[in-house]
Amino acid sequence: MAAIKVHGNPLSTASMRVLATVYEKEIDHEFVFVDMRAGEHKKEHFLSLNPFGQLPALEDGDLKLFESRAINKYIACEYADKGTQLIYQDSKMMAITSVWMEVEAQQYDPVASKLGWELAIKPLLGMSTDTAVVEENEAKLAKVLDVYESRLAQSKHLGGDCFTLADLHHLPTLHYLFGTQVKKLFDSRPHVSVWVADITARPAWLKVLALQSQQ
Amino acid sequence: MAAIKVHGNPLSTASMRVLATVYEKEIDHEFVFVDMRAGEHKKEHFLSLNPFGQLPALEDGDLKLFESRAINKYIACEYADKGTQLIYQDSKMMAITSVWMEVEAQQYDPVASKLGWELAIKPLLGMSTDTAVVEENEAKLAKVLDVYESRLAQSKHLGGDCFTLADLHHLPTLHYLFGTQVKKLFDSRPHVSVWVADITARPAWLKVLALQSQQ
Ligand SMILES: N[C@@H](CCC(=O)N[C@@H](CS)C(=O)NCC(=O)O)C(=O)O
Ligand SMILES: N[C@@H](CCC(=O)N[C@@H](CS)C(=O)NCC(=O)O)C(=O)O
Repeated sequence: MAAIKVHGNPLSTASMRVLATVYEKEIDHEFVFVDMRAGEHKKEHFLSLNPFGQLPALEDGDLKLFESRAINKYIACEYADKGTQLIYQDSKMMAITSVWMEVEAQQYDPVASKLGWELAIKPLLGMSTDTAVVEENEAKLAKVLDVYESRLAQSKHLGGDCFTLADLHHLPTLHYLFGTQVKKLFDSRPHVSVWVADITARPAWLKVLALQSQQ
Repeated sequence: MAAIKVHGNPLSTASMRVLATVYEKEIDHEFVFVDMRAGEHKKEHFLSLNPFGQLPALEDGDLKLFESRAINKYIACEYADKGTQLIYQDSKMMAITSVWMEVEAQQYDPVASKLGWELAIKPLLGMSTDTAVVEENEAKLAKVLDVYESRLAQSKHLGGDCFTLADLHHLPTLHYLFGTQVKKLFDSRPHVSVWVADITARPAWLKVLALQSQQ
């Protein structure tokens, strides 16, 4: 069978999210580098894979998918028998995992992405950080992490005792935030700290970081 | 079997999203009204159902869920043999539906929610609309709807020919936006218009609106 193709860029958080899954599942794949600086993601070929012109996109035979979280759910289901199990088979455990996947997407990511932009990306681009936006979003992140702290006091991972996509989806934004002042919000919460240390040390994640550092 | 309990408020978009699913699936359920004006969603009982203190929440026996889209996925899978089929069984069709569910959540909803807040909710609360925010988000919504227009030229619904959760998840925000100037962005796109007319006329959705008008 032809290998799946992941179109992305190792610096893009959404691409890293899919790469982490592909490495966890140990699936043969071809990584197709999309040059964002050259605007390749807004050109016709890439737009035929994702009409929103955003990284990443996946091809599996004639199936074309985009949106990192949808791609990951597909890989986790379709390649259930390979590598790490990233979702539960039991319908109730799956429902609970699905709740925490939504929490990542709806509660955590909007806040984490704004902080990542202000504190990690803007300085790289020589732009100045908006301290009011940082303050507002740090307060929001603290509230989200309070909920995580309670959850992780009861269960080793967000979806349950096993590592699942609900945890994995956090990795790329965690990575950028850990290089900023926001790290303290994670460090000051004991169960959150243990969880972060655990999921960021996974071999599959270290491979994503290695790929990134080759750029 | 005890009926499922939906905790929500018929004026809340996220609650309406779950109610639409419950009516499509024709499931016995108890609707537990949460009085947001009295702040019931921030009190201990409701926080034990959703630690973020947001509507809605679901109880199905001893299973407790929150986040409207996670609740809907659970209902669609668990009650697959009841009422309307809201997801595909085929894994590739399911993956495509999942992409468009993410598009709703990631691309459409953030923009639609901001416009709904500025143009529908703020005027009700006697607050003034921020025209710069409206302008920026109308431009973003137009781009999203351009993608929808191309998609709906090829397929009757977003996920494929059948009505699925990918369509249903739009209903509550569509409802609020259609009472505002933003309606023109939908009306000016022929395939989008037909799609909106089709999904907003579904009997299950009319029942949600009837429940709302009783408030
Ligand atoms: N919700 C999308 C977000 C994708 C996204 O924003 N990708 C970024 C790179 S991390 C991108 O391509 N940005 C370019 C653009 O939006 O024009 C996903 O999860 O795949
Ligand atoms: N992503 C959540 C959003 C829930 C939400 O924002 N609910 C609103 C009502 S539509 C709410 O409870 N707001 C009160 C608050 O945020 O304090 C979902 O889809 O369930």
